[in-house]
Amino acid sequence: MNAVAVAGHCTTKFSAGDIKIESLLFSAAKSLFEQTQNLTQKDIDVVLVSTNDNKKYLAPIISEMSGISPKISHNIESMCNSGTNSIVSAFSYISSGLADVALVVGAERFDSPGQVLEWDLSRGEFRHPVFWASMFTKAHKRKFGTTEEQLAYVSAKNHRNAQDNPSAYDSKKYTIEEIMNSKKLTDDLRLLDCSRPCSGSAAVLLVSEKVARKFTDSPVWIRGIGQKTTSASFTRNDLTRIESTIDASVQAYSMAKTAPDKIDVAEVHDAFTICEMMILEDLGIVQKGHAGKYIVDMYNTESRKINPRGGLIGSGHPLGATGIAQVAEIATQLQANAAGRQVEGAKLGLVQNMSAAATSSTVLILES
Amino acid sequence: MNAVAVAGHCTTKFSAGDIKIESLLFSAAKSLFEQTQNLTQKDIDVVLVSTNDNKKYLAPIISEMSGISPKISHNIESMCNSGTNSIVSAFSYISSGLADVALVVGAERFDSPGQVLEWDLSRGEFRHPVFWASMFTKAHKRKFGTTEEQLAYVSAKNHRNAQDNPSAYDSKKYTIEEIMNSKKLTDDLRLLDCSRPCSGSAAVLLVSEKVARKFTDSPVWIRGIGQKTTSASFTRNDLTRIESTIDASVQAYSMAKTAPDKIDVAEVHDAFTICEMMILEDLGIVQKGHAGKYIVDMYNTESRKINPRGGLIGSGHPLGATGIAQVAEIATQLQANAAGRQVEGAKLGLVQNMSAAATSSTVLILES
Repeated sequence: MNAVAVAGHCTTKFSAGDIKIESLLFSAAKSLFEQTQNLTQKDIDVVLVSTNDNKKYLAPIISEMSGISPKISHNIESMCNSGTNSIVSAFSYISSGLADVALVVGAERFDSPGQVLEWDLSRGEFRHPVFWASMFTKAHKRKFGTTEEQLAYVSAKNHRNAQDNPSAYDSKKYTIEEIMNSKKLTDDLRLLDCSRPCSGSAAVLLVSEKVARKFTDSPVWIRGIGQKTTSASFTRNDLTRIESTIDASVQAYSMAKTAPDKIDVAEVHDAFTICEMMILEDLGIVQKGHAGKYIVDMYNTESRKINPRGGLIGSGHPLGATGIAQVAEIATQLQANAAGRQVEGAKLGLVQNMSAAATSSTVLILES
Repeated sequence: MNAVAVAGHCTTKFSAGDIKIESLLFSAAKSLFEQTQNLTQKDIDVVLVSTNDNKKYLAPIISEMSGISPKISHNIESMCNSGTNSIVSAFSYISSGLADVALVVGAERFDSPGQVLEWDLSRGEFRHPVFWASMFTKAHKRKFGTTEEQLAYVSAKNHRNAQDNPSAYDSKKYTIEEIMNSKKLTDDLRLLDCSRPCSGSAAVLLVSEKVARKFTDSPVWIRGIGQKTTSASFTRNDLTRIESTIDASVQAYSMAKTAPDKIDVAEVHDAFTICEMMILEDLGIVQKGHAGKYIVDMYNTESRKINPRGGLIGSGHPLGATGIAQVAEIATQLQANAAGRQVEGAKLGLVQNMSAAATSSTVLILES
């Protein structure tokens, strides 16, 4: 398997803006070109677009807007996990030898049709993601004694981290009390327990080992990849575990020949506060049932190890851009370029992303 | 680069049916399982769905319906060329070593939103594909003296071939006169010069060399891959050449270490009669400007070398399924299983597919 590196990346400012999907995609591609040394249009072999938008042929369109005539160009969609799927697809185009340079651009509008899965009729009118997140929360509380206050610390930490992320949609700081008093949406979740859909985009340039040094002096290598789809519907037995993330992380650690205790920094899919807790447990970063205390400790010690850019709760969640923005953040951290939000000495990073009630997951391990 | 083979394939009956996209996809997956020896759900590492449908998360949905829990699952869209893009993506997942077995399923409904590109505003109200095809036709007539009668032979040949294709949507036989007297749509094109959108699906199983013999005694190897995106808009200087197909074919012949005169059988994207002519010239199968006579000769000698299943004109054109049905047909031919439409002794086959006024193309070379 040929080695593949991240050689360039950018994230645009997330917002509530009513911006055309083509403009969102183009902004990210343009910034990436401006920020990547020696990159010219003719270098690009592959253009992948990650989005849930209904517009068609967006990869050739963004190629034309950017002056690129790639070999390969297509859209990739798998709801919230579209961006990380696109990164893995680009990895495979390069690793197989079909390409040397791939531009992966993700974008979403605030009104994306990918926010609710119109499939699982068993959920009746309770199709919005807040309902499965609420069930996860109730189960975790019952089994492990997780408290509303601990959940609020996830939100407080990620909003605080987002203050040092210039791309974040909502970089307000909230007290634990403010979060616990925010509008109640279900029995178990309040408004500030939730990430918010928004308009935004991100881009990553993946390159083969052969050409990496042309574009960057500090390549970030993709060392581990794990992916798992357990189902499309919300049909789980144990509401306190995310099987797809467990499976994907086992694959990723094995491929990277590493273990959870070696991870210096991670971006995980905190669509809701409970998700960050369950994911940290299911990645093996903290023991099952102990994430509540772990997160309170992180908050109190001002650790930025988990979701240094503010995660989805702090940064906003433009679905198709999210996985790409996560990879861009970890690459920034491993290149020691994260300024005020830098995790000191980070060498090994992890990205976890997932879709639709955690029915599919991707885990990536990156190394500088 | 690890070798990759087609180990199973199927095409459902194309129709005008108002069938749910999930049902179309499932029908193809189910048939593929029934027709492929030793294939079980747990063998599948990757499920890729090719469609222009607006429904989301279809790859996990079709996985769940089929009882599969793959690692990788996502949708791929690039308009008419979605199916062949999906085949190449699956190839790269396997060739890179990330997977051994990939199920690629394509489907489209008759009312697909991928039929007209809502982007190129320079075309004003003339956005329907029939208009660019009409411009191609006029240019070819002017430059090479191509006649309406020669164009009618493409349609007559492909409709005749489709009579032996049990999956074909419209397997009526037409005389040259009937075609030339069919309803005039533009100055240059009549109804029977055009392929028709329809509902249909197809599936292909791609496998690594390591596991190929478990699933088939007659693997068909993907020897050459070429892809090119020239633009998204209809912005070409020479209306008699398809640059994206020329570029893609040069890549594919080079990778397969072969040449156009070695090709025994080909499926090409005859969305309109003029397309088959231009593609045969741009693939180097016939000299530029000579396709008209070549096609009349094929008709008169009853050669099935080009579009043996009837192509898009004879079989119908369910966008996301088309590229996959083309690969299924060439695999069937190279396995000598094509019954009444068999090209005798075919060992080396070619698939050409393209999107949106031929602004992007894929060329594959397959060998038994």
